[in-house]
Amino acid sequence: MTRETDPLVIFTPSGKRGRFALGTPVLTAARQLGVDLDSVCGGRGICSRCQITPSFGAFPKHGVDVLETALSDWNAVEERYKSKRGLIDGRRLGCQATVQGDVVIDVPPESQVHKQVVRKRAEAREIVVDPATRLYLVRVEEPDMHHPLGDKERLFQALEDQWGLADITLARALLPQLQSVLRRGKWEVTLAVHHRDTAAPGQIIGVWPGFFEGPIYGLAVDLGSTTIAGHLCDLATGNVIAATGVMNPQIRFGEDLMSRVSYAMMNEGGADEMTTEVRAALNRLVEEAAQEAEIDPAHILEATFVCNPVMHHLLLGLDPTELGQAPFALAASDAMDMPAAELDLTVLPATAQAYILPCIAGHVGADAAAVALSEAPEQSEELTLIVDVGTNAEILLGNRDRVLACSSPTGPAFEGAQISAGQRAAPGAIERVRIDPVTKEPRFRIIGSELWSDDPGFYLAAADLGITGICGSGIIEAVAEMRMAGLVDPSGLIGGPEQTGTARSIPEGRTYAYVLHDGRAENGPLIAVTQGDIRAIQLAKSALYAGARLLMDELGVDRVDRVTLAGAFGAHISPLHAMVLGMIPDAPLDKVVSAGNAAGTGARMALCSVAARRSVEATVRQITKVETAIEPRFQEHFVAANAIPHASAVAPNLAAAVTLPAVSFNTGQSGSEAGSRRRRRRA
Amino acid sequence: MTRETDPLVIFTPSGKRGRFALGTPVLTAARQLGVDLDSVCGGRGICSRCQITPSFGAFPKHGVDVLETALSDWNAVEERYKSKRGLIDGRRLGCQATVQGDVVIDVPPESQVHKQVVRKRAEAREIVVDPATRLYLVRVEEPDMHHPLGDKERLFQALEDQWGLADITLARALLPQLQSVLRRGKWEVTLAVHHRDTAAPGQIIGVWPGFFEGPIYGLAVDLGSTTIAGHLCDLATGNVIAATGVMNPQIRFGEDLMSRVSYAMMNEGGADEMTTEVRAALNRLVEEAAQEAEIDPAHILEATFVCNPVMHHLLLGLDPTELGQAPFALAASDAMDMPAAELDLTVLPATAQAYILPCIAGHVGADAAAVALSEAPEQSEELTLIVDVGTNAEILLGNRDRVLACSSPTGPAFEGAQISAGQRAAPGAIERVRIDPVTKEPRFRIIGSELWSDDPGFYLAAADLGITGICGSGIIEAVAEMRMAGLVDPSGLIGGPEQTGTARSIPEGRTYAYVLHDGRAENGPLIAVTQGDIRAIQLAKSALYAGARLLMDELGVDRVDRVTLAGAFGAHISPLHAMVLGMIPDAPLDKVVSAGNAAGTGARMALCSVAARRSVEATVRQITKVETAIEPRFQEHFVAANAIPHASAVAPNLAAAVTLPAVSFNTGQSGSEAGSRRRRRRA
Repeated sequence: MTRETDPLVIFTPSGKRGRFALGTPVLTAARQLGVDLDSVCGGRGICSRCQITPSFGAFPKHGVDVLETALSDWNAVEERYKSKRGLIDGRRLGCQATVQGDVVIDVPPESQVHKQVVRKRAEAREIVVDPATRLYLVRVEEPDMHHPLGDKERLFQALEDQWGLADITLARALLPQLQSVLRRGKWEVTLAVHHRDTAAPGQIIGVWPGFFEGPIYGLAVDLGSTTIAGHLCDLATGNVIAATGVMNPQIRFGEDLMSRVSYAMMNEGGADEMTTEVRAALNRLVEEAAQEAEIDPAHILEATFVCNPVMHHLLLGLDPTELGQAPFALAASDAMDMPAAELDLTVLPATAQAYILPCIAGHVGADAAAVALSEAPEQSEELTLIVDVGTNAEILLGNRDRVLACSSPTGPAFEGAQISAGQRAAPGAIERVRIDPVTKEPRFRIIGSELWSDDPGFYLAAADLGITGICGSGIIEAVAEMRMAGLVDPSGLIGGPEQTGTARSIPEGRTYAYVLHDGRAENGPLIAVTQGDIRAIQLAKSALYAGARLLMDELGVDRVDRVTLAGAFGAHISPLHAMVLGMIPDAPLDKVVSAGNAAGTGARMALCSVAARRSVEATVRQITKVETAIEPRFQEHFVAANAIPHASAVAPNLAAAVTLPAVSFNTGQSGSEAGSRRRRRRA
Repeated sequence: MTRETDPLVIFTPSGKRGRFALGTPVLTAARQLGVDLDSVCGGRGICSRCQITPSFGAFPKHGVDVLETALSDWNAVEERYKSKRGLIDGRRLGCQATVQGDVVIDVPPESQVHKQVVRKRAEAREIVVDPATRLYLVRVEEPDMHHPLGDKERLFQALEDQWGLADITLARALLPQLQSVLRRGKWEVTLAVHHRDTAAPGQIIGVWPGFFEGPIYGLAVDLGSTTIAGHLCDLATGNVIAATGVMNPQIRFGEDLMSRVSYAMMNEGGADEMTTEVRAALNRLVEEAAQEAEIDPAHILEATFVCNPVMHHLLLGLDPTELGQAPFALAASDAMDMPAAELDLTVLPATAQAYILPCIAGHVGADAAAVALSEAPEQSEELTLIVDVGTNAEILLGNRDRVLACSSPTGPAFEGAQISAGQRAAPGAIERVRIDPVTKEPRFRIIGSELWSDDPGFYLAAADLGITGICGSGIIEAVAEMRMAGLVDPSGLIGGPEQTGTARSIPEGRTYAYVLHDGRAENGPLIAVTQGDIRAIQLAKSALYAGARLLMDELGVDRVDRVTLAGAFGAHISPLHAMVLGMIPDAPLDKVVSAGNAAGTGARMALCSVAARRSVEATVRQITKVETAIEPRFQEHFVAANAIPHASAVAPNLAAAVTLPAVSFNTGQSGSEAGSRRRRRRA
């Protein structure tokens, strides 16, 4: 009970205020007001998480000398802490300093539990750290014959008395160690308590004798069909302390997802085999991340997973067969909390917790959900189109009012597969292309070098790397540049040397190819864009465009305000070239942005924030799912989107940026070429 | 919304009543009124659990012809069910028969979910079946591309829509089968849903395609130091369908509990070794029970466990060392719910649930809690002393007002160990003894034969069994009879032949023994009660009495209203002889009863009833624990209780039943005998 005459305490930046009796510790005052002030040791001057800075405030009744009398004197506990561990000048320990008069107290960011993680992109949503697992130091009553509660029950009692945490459970794997840890810690232990949700009862998933200051870690996993990427984070700060990746060993069962589904269908135990492989790879990932960060994997207490639906099922040990055929039924769609041990993640401690983000639909997975979490279309004023390009493109379209999602079977052309000189994005791959519209001569850059091919010293620098092929972003630029240089007509036909006026147009069967680089004199490859390559890119971009267009139809709009290209590949696509190609609908060029690995970012957000988990679950429930496979208009849009660019993509924004030559190479040979294209599509 | 003119439906025996629109199915009416009417199929006329009997009632407005018009006509579903499976005449299926007029409807016991299990003993508490796990048939929506919820999520939706069960989870081990079971069942599946508590969200722990009528089973396990007993029960009816037992293989680590604690202390990994052994034995127990009942172990979905604290820890994989020394701290005392798989019960399905009853204190285990559950002293008007005799005796004393508990280190004498001719209760062991006070000649009965040794044909019948030794109840009767026949004096000394006048008093070192049976001529044993045997029994009975007396002191009483002897051994003790011996305080002889295996009964009650689990947990929290090891009065009572019977036990009830000869055999030899007795006590 406080009185009018008690000192007034104001906390910044929260602005929360209240009156407290003389001698109240600052930490106690903060807790009573609900001020976000961290503490692991519960006020024993050990953990230093509750550092605060008393500051001058606008106190009507007080002058500038408030500071000197407002808090109790610097004490021995603080002195010991400062001499041993250091403390910034002006800082006090909130559990030691007590209120002695009116005072303004600043809680610095690092003393807040809910720290904000700064993101590099201005347009990205804020990440506020709100971890599911936190550390608590407790003092446990010693056993007493007359009140023979068990060690576990006295531990629960301590958590309730000292931290207000009720209905706690203990991960069973910790029970056998509990007796010894309590006694080694002389009845003082640090606990890691995991709350699936703010309202859910907690579970103790870690226990250490005495004071354990952490850090404890979590691993955010982006489980892709080809690579598995992991970000190891400090759960208290959200900081990434290691980023690592391993190949997905399932590649030996099929490069693309449908081959893996087929493998599961055709082979008894095939799905289990793939599950075993991917789980083994995840254990390697954990080991590598821990090694890179030089930490003990025993301190990694959480993991989150984003993945497409097929990988989702294979991770969980579920047969993906149903995902290969209509109605593409997921065995489980909602987010899942589970012990990581159930995923055979044996390198993690037995008590570590896994969280798998929800799937949106049978073709739109937890990776797309993670993109939605990272990019937050449901919070956008602008109508935003988000495209995560891969073998399947996941497409989100929406704003505050409504968000739609679909996936579109672009095939692997955008990843450099099914392209004659195509390759993965790796050193030596051509990634940027420019073609002079007058001379029709190309210049290019390869991954691993900052130089253009017409820069002095390029070939010297490239000698080590080799010029090995062309990657996804390279082929997109090449095709768009060929169109802009008049080497390709709107239907996608490559002109012969007579039509284009360059000897780089060479015959390739009954069609033509355009030579980007001829390395044959140095035993290197001939890197050319063939008619088949153009057709493959046309199929892929038509599928992508048709998916986006289908969602726009569903919303009843003809244009979008903003386009976000997500995914490792999306980060490297040139917006202009994508629009020339007709991959994406017209949008102001400065509103076409790359979100980088948005799925991975979503996994990291879910790792560091329970609120983010609830947010993505709510968003996924509200997303309208559109199934391209059964939608006749998808086929219509797909066919209509074949031209480069197709009519509906030639829009004001693009016209302002480039002029596209009006050429046509349609000759007698096109008939058979069109026939071969149909055959490819059928396959 | 019902109207005044709607038909009135009255259910018996509950008496619940309400008005329902014409055509309302009886099952629907019952559910709306909260009438306990079972159903697995949810009203599809498949399971027949909702059988009811329309009957004549005291309707003011109607005559005896109500019955003919009150329910809808017998229909095809009922006809098909009756022809295929049979149906008692007059019975209807509650889901098929609809209300057509005012009607009284009787719900027979077998149609109620909460069935009462009849117990044999009149004074025993009622058992009402209230299983944690029940079966539910649901029809699941087929997958739909436009609403791409997963199979699991549609299953949850069905449970909520069709049964009102919300917040359900699915045991992860079932997830990989779910897709296939749903499709094999054509989107109709039967689920076993486990609710730890009435209020707790349920977990699906079994799933079968289509309609699975059960039964599903549970195993109640009484995990003793020597034997492990299991009762296999039908979870829907509470009926025992098999009772089986295996030896506790931990015997090779020590016969008594303290030897096992020592083994754990002295041997690295010793506790784990014992855990592995006992879990293996439990798997054998499950197998044997399933074989005996001829059922599939996959249908055993629950198990409950009662055991002393040391076995409790060894079952859970906890080091029991702390239980061997003050303050006898339990690692965990509360009841525990867990997947049976965590106890390595691999013969059970991976989803089976285990429940371990709470421990009362470091010396008073879940077995004592189970005795409290079965005997319900907290509900008794009479002050009841409950004694579960074993190597440690667990003692409960109390009534509605208060219940106290302690354990007392009786040692193994009551189990036939440390007795010269002692043996376990097995065929051939002497279990009853009578001694003629005039001739001093004994007669006896052995386990396996109904005849007394002076009946004609006894020795013929005994030839197969052999007369092999004397068991716990036999030695108690022998010592008490020796006292009543004047062969032993109040101090416990056996008289020599001159004093007793019988040649059956033979010298045994410096003391005497009394020969019950001399089988040496037939190569059998000489079975005699030695002075050492009497001393061992005196120590054991003093400890038991001192424990009971300590609780009486604590309550401030000098007598009890009732004594219940629990345990397999308790079932065979003669109340009169126990009182002559001074094992138990004075009580009216007709108020000294055997409860049989009360711990096992408690395990079975917990198996079949969630309410029983909550009841025992509440009782245990309220029991006052008294620690004998640190209580000086225990030692005083122990010393004072040495005589046969001791002064405080010679009470009106006993005096009315028997006359005890006033003999004294205290001679010069008693000094050294007393000395050897002290040495024994020290050991």
